[in-house]
Amino acid sequence: MFTSHNAAAAGALRHNQAMGQGQEFDVIRRLMHTWGDLATDIGDDAAVLPSRTDGLRVVSTDACVEHVHFRSAWISPDEVGHRAAAAALSDLAAMGAVAEFVLVAFVVPDAWQPRLEAVAQGIGRVVRAAGARIVGGNLSRGDTFGITLTVIGCAARPVSRAGATPGDLVVVTGQLGGPGQALAAWMQGQAPREWARTRFAQPWPRLAQGQRLAAHGVTAMLDLSDGLAADLGHLAAASGVRVVMDSAALPCGPDCAVGEALGSGEEYELVATVPPAAWPALKAAWDAEQLGPLHVIGRIEGKAPGEPPVMVTSGTDATGFDHFARPVVEMRPGKGEL
Amino acid sequence: MFTSHNAAAAGALRHNQAMGQGQEFDVIRRLMHTWGDLATDIGDDAAVLPSRTDGLRVVSTDACVEHVHFRSAWISPDEVGHRAAAAALSDLAAMGAVAEFVLVAFVVPDAWQPRLEAVAQGIGRVVRAAGARIVGGNLSRGDTFGITLTVIGCAARPVSRAGATPGDLVVVTGQLGGPGQALAAWMQGQAPREWARTRFAQPWPRLAQGQRLAAHGVTAMLDLSDGLAADLGHLAAASGVRVVMDSAALPCGPDCAVGEALGSGEEYELVATVPPAAWPALKAAWDAEQLGPLHVIGRIEGKAPGEPPVMVTSGTDATGFDHFARPVVEMRPGKGEL
Repeated sequence: MFTSHNAAAAGALRHNQAMGQGQEFDVIRRLMHTWGDLATDIGDDAAVLPSRTDGLRVVSTDACVEHVHFRSAWISPDEVGHRAAAAALSDLAAMGAVAEFVLVAFVVPDAWQPRLEAVAQGIGRVVRAAGARIVGGNLSRGDTFGITLTVIGCAARPVSRAGATPGDLVVVTGQLGGPGQALAAWMQGQAPREWARTRFAQPWPRLAQGQRLAAHGVTAMLDLSDGLAADLGHLAAASGVRVVMDSAALPCGPDCAVGEALGSGEEYELVATVPPAAWPALKAAWDAEQLGPLHVIGRIEGKAPGEPPVMVTSGTDATGFDHFARPVVEMRPGKGEL
Repeated sequence: MFTSHNAAAAGALRHNQAMGQGQEFDVIRRLMHTWGDLATDIGDDAAVLPSRTDGLRVVSTDACVEHVHFRSAWISPDEVGHRAAAAALSDLAAMGAVAEFVLVAFVVPDAWQPRLEAVAQGIGRVVRAAGARIVGGNLSRGDTFGITLTVIGCAARPVSRAGATPGDLVVVTGQLGGPGQALAAWMQGQAPREWARTRFAQPWPRLAQGQRLAAHGVTAMLDLSDGLAADLGHLAAASGVRVVMDSAALPCGPDCAVGEALGSGEEYELVATVPPAAWPALKAAWDAEQLGPLHVIGRIEGKAPGEPPVMVTSGTDATGFDHFARPVVEMRPGKGEL
């Protein structure tokens, strides 16, 4: 494990602790060099975080595993890191939180050792853009490359996925369908369209958007990781409500069909439920801040026995992404690739 | 990701959030059942931690990967969980911190799905004994079983490994050599002695011991994960000092040689440096509290150019454990086992 011994001195750029000898520590030293002032005071058993009096601490952990979340033939090592960091930080965005600290645990097969600095660069780019710092991590050998990122932030009023109320508007950021379309193309041995590929390989966590939505009193929020239909199912289950979507209102990406927008996982856009009275001020602030697309795609209704929790009007049937429902073998490279 | 949506309501036992459909969520529901009141309010994007005004937050992440940190033929799934939790919490112990929150990220191949609840039981036992709570985690498929635990605690005065001062006594908890001896036996196809096996399979994080040491003003502390010789090398490097150990003073376990005590990794005992004036009161409090073995094994001296950072008098030459120095193939099961 490598961690910051005094992240309390957050502002000041300090030297990392001297580490003992060994190849493991040589690798950690290279990572520290790659991250530069983004990862300071590294080298102790655990990281010390500054105490805060404002806001609540918000924390989440997220894993990115080769053959499950990506294949090396699809995206570059830099993009692997970029994507893993965005996915983890997206959970903070979904709480309306500010990102502060990141811990990065790598499992590294031999073949990945030469690519580790490129992965670290991708992680660093996203962490830096999020305004956070890397305060620690772990380095382990293993047969399969994986990154588990733990992200820590704070929020004055964390937004759960459990507060949606009948009458609320359902809004979504961004344009949907890209990651799913890219994945489908790769699985069929084809090259995805550039827009879809970039959406899969280089997502950005919607932190500023999540903070803006939280500030305007959204009642529930989550990030799109399993796909819009499935994630709204989670929101409906957690809130005890029903979601009615209008398929014509879905912000489909270029050349993306409604079914792709509904089923595309790992979008890392945000879905939130907004009391109608809060919508005009939210929209005005959103546009003034130029936070990108924000569309009303449906409304929250009371739960009706026997009715599905998510309904799509004039709709296409679609389900979301469930790691455990899809046999892992589907995601494995062919023999030639291994 | 599965996380607590309101860990702020720490005392109260609450229901976990309703989750949507899917096999992944069925697995999470089973884990929640296994953990019972140890893991409440699970189900949101990120966990919300109560704000604190006393002490600093301390955080660390640690991975446990099959074929690297253990083999299934050696220890049970319950012990895999126990050991992973102990290893992660040991980093908090090494800071003198109180353990508060744990996040558990699993990577699960098909073969491990039936064992996941036993693993969760082992984790739960150690987290419960540590007085902490599970506030979230992640569940992913993958080819190799792995657990990455993130642990969060607090400490009034976190103890780094960088404060050792010439003149300090070097003390160590517990009896050493067991995990290394067990590992060596397994690698030679033999059954380890029971004491050594238990030390490998069921270590306990020395949280009470670390808090006691911190309260008495130890100047540096770390947990034994790489082996005493290597870990004292880290302490010496971080503190800019030299460690002189007396091999006759080492608390070797039953039937353990000095070389085994020096080189045995993953002990999860604590090493600390104590100003001589603080020792009598520390020892008296330690014995009154019955915190187990605590031995003075050496002293801190000033760094001398050209001399090794760790010296063992009347000593055996030994080096510690370095994941990246030892080829991973050594730790892999034979073909018959796969």
